[in-house]
Parts: sequence; structure tokens; C-alpha cells
Amino acid sequence: MKPLSKPAATLPSLMDPQVIRDAQKRISPFLHRTPILESARLNDWLGHRVRFKMETFQKAGAFKSRGALNALLALKEAGKLPSSVVAYSSGNHAQGVAWAAAALGIPARIYLPKIVSAIKQQATRAYGAEVIITPTRVEAEEAAKRDAAAGAFLLPPYDLDDVIAGQGTACLEALEDGEKPDAIFAPIGGGGLLSGTWLAKQLLYPQAEVWGAEPFNANDAARSLREGNIFRWPDSPKTLADGARTLAVSPRTFAYLQRTNGIVEITESELCYWAQWLAHLLKCVVEPTSAMAMAAAARWGLTQKPGREMLVIISGGNVAAETMRDIWKEDMLLNPPLTQFLHQYVIEISPKG
Amino acid sequence: MKPLSKPAATLPSLMDPQVIRDAQKRISPFLHRTPILESARLNDWLGHRVRFKMETFQKAGAFKSRGALNALLALKEAGKLPSSVVAYSSGNHAQGVAWAAAALGIPARIYLPKIVSAIKQQATRAYGAEVIITPTRVEAEEAAKRDAAAGAFLLPPYDLDDVIAGQGTACLEALEDGEKPDAIFAPIGGGGLLSGTWLAKQLLYPQAEVWGAEPFNANDAARSLREGNIFRWPDSPKTLADGARTLAVSPRTFAYLQRTNGIVEITESELCYWAQWLAHLLKCVVEPTSAMAMAAAARWGLTQKPGREMLVIISGGNVAAETMRDIWKEDMLLNPPLTQFLHQYVIEISPKG
Repeated sequence: MKPLSKPAATLPSLMDPQVIRDAQKRISPFLHRTPILESARLNDWLGHRVRFKMETFQKAGAFKSRGALNALLALKEAGKLPSSVVAYSSGNHAQGVAWAAAALGIPARIYLPKIVSAIKQQATRAYGAEVIITPTRVEAEEAAKRDAAAGAFLLPPYDLDDVIAGQGTACLEALEDGEKPDAIFAPIGGGGLLSGTWLAKQLLYPQAEVWGAEPFNANDAARSLREGNIFRWPDSPKTLADGARTLAVSPRTFAYLQRTNGIVEITESELCYWAQWLAHLLKCVVEPTSAMAMAAAARWGLTQKPGREMLVIISGGNVAAETMRDIWKEDMLLNPPLTQFLHQYVIEISPKG
Repeated sequence: MKPLSKPAATLPSLMDPQVIRDAQKRISPFLHRTPILESARLNDWLGHRVRFKMETFQKAGAFKSRGALNALLALKEAGKLPSSVVAYSSGNHAQGVAWAAAALGIPARIYLPKIVSAIKQQATRAYGAEVIITPTRVEAEEAAKRDAAAGAFLLPPYDLDDVIAGQGTACLEALEDGEKPDAIFAPIGGGGLLSGTWLAKQLLYPQAEVWGAEPFNANDAARSLREGNIFRWPDSPKTLADGARTLAVSPRTFAYLQRTNGIVEITESELCYWAQWLAHLLKCVVEPTSAMAMAAAARWGLTQKPGREMLVIISGGNVAAETMRDIWKEDMLLNPPLTQFLHQYVIEISPKG
């Protein structure tokens, strides 16, 4: 028997990338195979080709339904389907869990910190979940853990192998559909999507680079990679990218993040800039968190010779009215022109952790 | 020889609906076959099924590319491809003409009244057209007519058979794709889209009702139908639905409008309400002009027994930053709930003209 104090026993090992394909088999009958879009005009401007995997059109409006459903279906396969589910979230995980629990007919309770927009609260309730508002993110986590101790199944937003495997199916689908990206970009909150994305490309297209995008104002993952230790915020950092308001990555996701090519830190102006431009070019509602991944791609493109192919995972499209007002406060579609703007905002890309 | 004063000679006759299929054959190699979307949640709420034909994803972001391209290709077929094109527009026609002229390698000059957003001006220039700003819509029309007198081909926004036939291809595609709507809804500016839509359903599904949607603040078409004569604004009426800022329908389109089931007049609040809800439910950028068609569908639905099928033509997705700020000024996603809101805004549907 291994002693509990042995560090190696507490370090999570990486999963076999095959888990992404297993997850895909499990969840695909219930979920959309989301489309891939591109903009000829954007490609012209950048001198590269950018392909967008549109998780905005996924059930509940974001990739989160993939991980949540995969976790519950894996439990069901193992004959361990829980009688109730509990979760905490500052973003789309709430709706993803509510949707997945409803799909399997299990009652769900979701704790949301009060910073979560009223429309996300309403949408989570609309999927049939019980919603409880807490003052802070920390209290939401603690309340959920108390419910878990009392017997509910705690479905974490990223710190679970089956959640990571589920999130990776977005990238898997794109690669199965024939994408051959030089680099793949995804936003990072807790690191579930980025970890799954890294696994998916290891399985199908290992030569692709994988980059995370994180708000400069909420750069705990970038700091963690730079410092080699997980940095944790005392409470949710302020950023328009609400999917990145997580307090910290987990040892489990950190192990994958360390294998990516790095994290690009994005300013709030860039979030707005790309949320506006993607609305204009793609005619789709793109969350600031997702626009961030495009910002990272644009910055990476500037370091490359023309003609590279990029895959940007547009993680979701759930945007509250107040966030819309923030996005569109200033007109960024007119001036300055795209490439000038990009150069103006180029700051150092974080080194590989 | 008929005397010029004989009224029957000046009244346009209706086209054979077959022209829509001819137009489709002509333009389809160059344009997107746009997707049809729906929202299960919206259907639940309304008690009807609403299918959206998404012209937001058409070339240049709106159905206007269809009519402009059809007009130019029909001239080319007749060996009369003009050496230059001129147009005036307060909305998407500018971009549609600029795109179509560029596709055929013809120089285009577009007169835009200064109320047109800077981003639409920029987009029109980006397709290679020369853009000239005029103080008013009336002056834009007059300047374009002077150029036409000097030899340029004036491509009008709606008062041309080939433009009408091109616009009808959006509805034709939806019906070819298997839609069986009880009623079809489209916005009305000058009436080109609605006329083409009526022709398309006559060809493939004559039992469908066809309804136009017009802003209450810019209801010249509804007034024209009620009065039996074309009503004309002295200058562009004020409404968030910029595609409906036309001064008047033409005798040509009026002849089709009189055969539709009528026009539903929509308040500015309803425009915002549905622009917000369609962004939320469809994750697509929907112009206020297009949201208006959904508003008309929702109102019609209230007059019907549950279970009706509606086809809503989402005409475009070109929205300026200032319009985004107007749309999202007030949070209409939260309160009051959908059906309550609808009842609150029900006003009389215009009788058939």
C-alpha cells in the first residue's frame, strides 16, 4: 500500500488520448456536431486562414454540455448514475450541467456566485435545475462541496477526467472533419477545454501547436506556467471574459497545460475588439471568452510567415445584455484598421511553462 | 400605338413565378445556399414551430446580393452587361450591389445618405465600390439618376423585375428544402423581398400565407395598402430597422404586396426585444429589420391555434456598433416573460390591402 504522503501518488497522470474518442462515441447521439465557419475577409487581412469551430451552436450554447454529459454517461455506463447532481459555476458550466442532468432525468442543484448574469441564472433554471445564488465564487464552491459530502454527485467544471475528455470532443470533431491546423487556440478558465483539446490533437494531429488564451486581468494560468506552481486568486478576477473567472487551474489540468505551447494573455480592449469583429464577420454571437481565443490566434499569426492555418475554438455564445453593452461601448469596427490595432496590442507571448 | 396616358400601360403586370427558378439557376453558382435554423425553446414558448432562413450568412451579409447579382447576370445573358453600375441605398443594397459588381468585374458607384452607418460605408468600399455620401436619401436617389442619364446602369434596390426575382430565391430555397409553412414572414422596405417571396410560394407552395413586417414608425407600405395608393415619405423615416427606411414602395412591388395577406406594423420596442431574443436563442447577429419579421410571426401566432408552422426570412446581419448599443440599451431578456410581453404589444394587424 502506497503511503498517502508520497507526492507521485497525488500527481495526476495524463490520460490516453483515446479517451476523447470514447467520449465522442458516448455523447454524440445527444449533441450537435457543430459547424466550422470562416471569413474570407478576415483571412485576407491576416494573411492566414482561420477556421472557427462554433460551439456557440452546441446544446445550451457552449462546449460545456460535452464534458458534463460525458461525465454523467460514463457514470451511467459504470452502473453508478447518481440520484442527484450538484455544481458551482461562474459561467457556462451551470447551463451545461443543468442541460446534461435534464437529458438524463436527474435533479440538479447549481450554486452561482451573484456576479453571474441574471440571464444565465434564468437559462440554468429553464433547463430545470435548482439555482442558488451565493455572495462569492468561493462560497459557491464550498456549498457545492457540502452537498457532495451529503451524497450528491459533484460535477466539477474541469477537475475530472471525464469532463476533460468530453471537452476534447470539440477539437476531435474538427480534426475528424479534415482540419489540418498549424496551431489550435482555445480559451482557458480552469483548463478543461485546453486539456481536452491537447489530448484530441495528440490523437489525430500531433504536429499541431496548442495555445491557450487568458485575460491579462485573470492570468492565473499564465502565472502558474511561468512560476511552475498553481497560482490561485482569492476571489473571481474581474474580466469581461466570464468563462475565465475561475480561481485557479487544478493539478490535473496543469499537467496538460504544461504540455501546450503556452498561453497568450489578452487585454480587455482586445476582447471587445474581437467580439465586435467576429459578430461583424461571422454574423454570430461570440462570447468575450471565445473572442479571446481569436485574439490569441491573431497575435500568433503576427509571429508567423503568411499562409498558416489556425483552428480557433469558439467556446460559446451566451452573452448577457450588460455584457453586450460593455462589448459595444466603443466602436472598434472603424478605427484603427485591423492590422494596426493588432501591432499596437502585441505584448509578449508567455513562454512555455 | 398605345397612348402614353393610358393607365393600363403604366401598371406593371405580375411576373410568371417561374422567374424565381430562372434566377436561382443563374445566381446559385455564386452564392451560398443559406441554412435554416430553429430554436426548440422558442417553439415551446410560442406553441408553434418557427423556422428561420438565415440570409445573415449570405454573401455581403444579406439577401440583397441575390437580387443585385441576378440583375447583372440577366443583363450579361442578354449581351448587355453594363460598363459601370450606380446605386443608392440606405441599407444592405449598397453592399449587395458592390459585391455583385465586383463579382462581375464592373466598377460601381454607390450614393449613401449620411444616416447610413460608417461601418456600412466602410464595408461597401471594401467590396471595391466608390462611395459618395449625400445629405439625404432623396439626394442620393437624384445623384444616382443623373449618373444613369449619363450612361451608368442604375441598379435599383427593388423596382426592377430581375431584382425581385433574385430576392425570391431565398424563399424558393427554403421551400425546395422541404419547408411546409402555414405562413411566411419577411420584412418590407421597398417591397422587393416580399414580392419575390410571394412569387416563390406561388410557384412551390401556394397555400402558404405571406405577411410583411414594417416598423410602425415607417409604415408607408401598410398605409399604402390601407389607402389603396402609394404613400411616400418626404425623407427617410426614423426607425432602428434601417432596411425599412425606404421612402415608398413602387407600383411594381405594390402590385405584389396587394396580393399578400397583409403587413404587420411593429413597434421599436418589439424590434429590440426580438433582436435580443434571436441573438440569445439562435446565437446569430440578426438585424433589427429582420427581427421585425419575427415580431410579425409572433403576433400572427397569437391569432392562431397552436401547432402552426412559420417560415421567417432573416434578411440580414449587418449591424453597426451604434445600432448594437440601441438594441441592448435596455435588458429585454429578463422581464417581462415572452408571452406576457407579446400580449402587451398586440395591436391590430393591417387588413389585406
